[in-house]
Amino acid sequence: MINFSPGPSQLYFTVEDHTKSAFRLGVPSMSHRSPAFEAIYQHTQEQLRALLSIPHTHHIFFTSSATEIWERLIQNLVVEKSAHFVNGAFSEKFYKAAKQLHKKALEIRVQDGDGFSNPLKLDAELIGVTHNETSTGVSLPKSFIYGLKDQNPDALLCVDAVSSLPNVDFDYSKIDSVYFSVQKGFGMPPGLGVWIANDACIARAESLLAKGLSIGTHHSLPFYLKNGLKNQTPETPNSVAIYVLGKVAEDMMRRGIGTIRNETEYKAVILYNELKQHKSLSAFVTEKTYQSPTVIIVESGDLTERLSKYLQEKGIVAGEGYGVHQGSQLRFANFPAHSKEQFELLTDYLTAFS
Amino acid sequence: MINFSPGPSQLYFTVEDHTKSAFRLGVPSMSHRSPAFEAIYQHTQEQLRALLSIPHTHHIFFTSSATEIWERLIQNLVVEKSAHFVNGAFSEKFYKAAKQLHKKALEIRVQDGDGFSNPLKLDAELIGVTHNETSTGVSLPKSFIYGLKDQNPDALLCVDAVSSLPNVDFDYSKIDSVYFSVQKGFGMPPGLGVWIANDACIARAESLLAKGLSIGTHHSLPFYLKNGLKNQTPETPNSVAIYVLGKVAEDMMRRGIGTIRNETEYKAVILYNELKQHKSLSAFVTEKTYQSPTVIIVESGDLTERLSKYLQEKGIVAGEGYGVHQGSQLRFANFPAHSKEQFELLTDYLTAFS
Repeated sequence: MINFSPGPSQLYFTVEDHTKSAFRLGVPSMSHRSPAFEAIYQHTQEQLRALLSIPHTHHIFFTSSATEIWERLIQNLVVEKSAHFVNGAFSEKFYKAAKQLHKKALEIRVQDGDGFSNPLKLDAELIGVTHNETSTGVSLPKSFIYGLKDQNPDALLCVDAVSSLPNVDFDYSKIDSVYFSVQKGFGMPPGLGVWIANDACIARAESLLAKGLSIGTHHSLPFYLKNGLKNQTPETPNSVAIYVLGKVAEDMMRRGIGTIRNETEYKAVILYNELKQHKSLSAFVTEKTYQSPTVIIVESGDLTERLSKYLQEKGIVAGEGYGVHQGSQLRFANFPAHSKEQFELLTDYLTAFS
Repeated sequence: MINFSPGPSQLYFTVEDHTKSAFRLGVPSMSHRSPAFEAIYQHTQEQLRALLSIPHTHHIFFTSSATEIWERLIQNLVVEKSAHFVNGAFSEKFYKAAKQLHKKALEIRVQDGDGFSNPLKLDAELIGVTHNETSTGVSLPKSFIYGLKDQNPDALLCVDAVSSLPNVDFDYSKIDSVYFSVQKGFGMPPGLGVWIANDACIARAESLLAKGLSIGTHHSLPFYLKNGLKNQTPETPNSVAIYVLGKVAEDMMRRGIGTIRNETEYKAVILYNELKQHKSLSAFVTEKTYQSPTVIIVESGDLTERLSKYLQEKGIVAGEGYGVHQGSQLRFANFPAHSKEQFELLTDYLTAFS
């Protein structure tokens, strides 16, 4: 079966072999305070940094999930006010996390399938924006995100790139924090989140501490940094996942991140073209600027169940529509683990479907 | 190599095969909202419940580590005051987590290698006690722990069993919360914590919420419970580890938890006997009541480095002494993954060492 569900998604080609190697090398039993683990940690950091062109102003930390990162961002970076651009279920969850942590959280909302293009000036210490909404297939223009930073130089700009990395090429000088989890674009089993945060985030967390505020326990930014400088993690981590992530990043570097990004574009183009021409299916996101290359949502209405079964008979698993869209949409991930041939096959099957 | 380090420790015999099966069954790519994942979640819950005789007054939740559970316990259960029995590095970390979360935390401390036997009456909403201190090899008598509950019926009694489960047989009616991580007694790779919490803990968390206090975001007890009742987790979890844990618990049930516990006792007895008779080595914990069966610490003084190398030449990895004891002690885990034959070999080598 080819798994087009947007996460947990299809495994990257090399993940199973790297997991076997991890066992062979004794990674599961390795002390997380040993030089052997430190070498793994360092390798993963270096490979990720190279693959995504992350500058040294930005640190890379490991959490258990992107969901955890929403909580850590608010805990570490906000005294009073945050602002959230909400255009789907995941951007909304970040907003709700801020409310649960008793912050004055501002919600700027558009309806599902829509995006944002006007970088507002906001009264907030942190601005949360979702580069790629996995629930609605909306991708926001990078110019909008950078514009937010220009408009709000003193706010920390935090970008959810859960389902867009490693495809998106960010200018990190315009972003204070970016985060993702490994079961999407990196094609790994779930259980690891990656939190990229710059020196301004560290300084903010330290200023909260200096004010006598609590910023959590083991997953505070200063404690992450203290351990990270030794190539260690605050707690005993998911060491196998850290090892595999480094190896996958290395594999992607070898294949060429440019090649991966070009192929992603090609695959997106052929699927969106197919939907444009199709007599009974269409793209849910109609505005071209907002059409995500990595999570493509098909508006299939009454045909949804039949289409899903039809594809399954062909060996293709589509992701269900999210939330209220379950039953009227199908979601297709376009990650590095999905080959051009698989996308060509998919579009051929869609052509033949009526 | 035989790995006697107390964690991450030697893998349980069947872990690698179960990990392979997880990949074969598609667990890494499985949606965590699918019936297939719910079946895995339910299986793991049932096997753990059966293995450890956990009554239905107590719920089982998954975190990323035991370190995370310290934070969650304080967030969910304490308005103002907690009390912590501190006799080593890990019990101290829980106490410090409470302070970092701005609670009035009381520390009741004895020196490393010592334990507690007098169940005090305390002015606290939560009492933290470490059944087995992995850093010092001290195990507290169950009678002391149950006595604490008798003395403090209104406090929530939270027991760190990180390095004692599945060996210890608790009377859960005397304990409100117990927790462990899987890389110790369960012989798995790190990356999963197991948090057992009873209805009183849920009620306390809900009462904090009702008072308008924040109890965190995705890992609050009410949200865990809401998802758990559907056999789901709050976030995309480490699904492979949840699958493997259920299979390992099943394997241990098949072997017989009574057999495992008897063997643990046998292995502990032969090692402590060896240390009693040895001319240059001794047990760090001198009081028999406090001698942990599962983490046995050898006071090796100036001989430490030589002993460590000697064992390594024989194919045996010992755990280093923790913190200030590094260089003068070695730690030996006695987990279900360590066979009687391996312990007999170890004691033979110690006899021959001088």
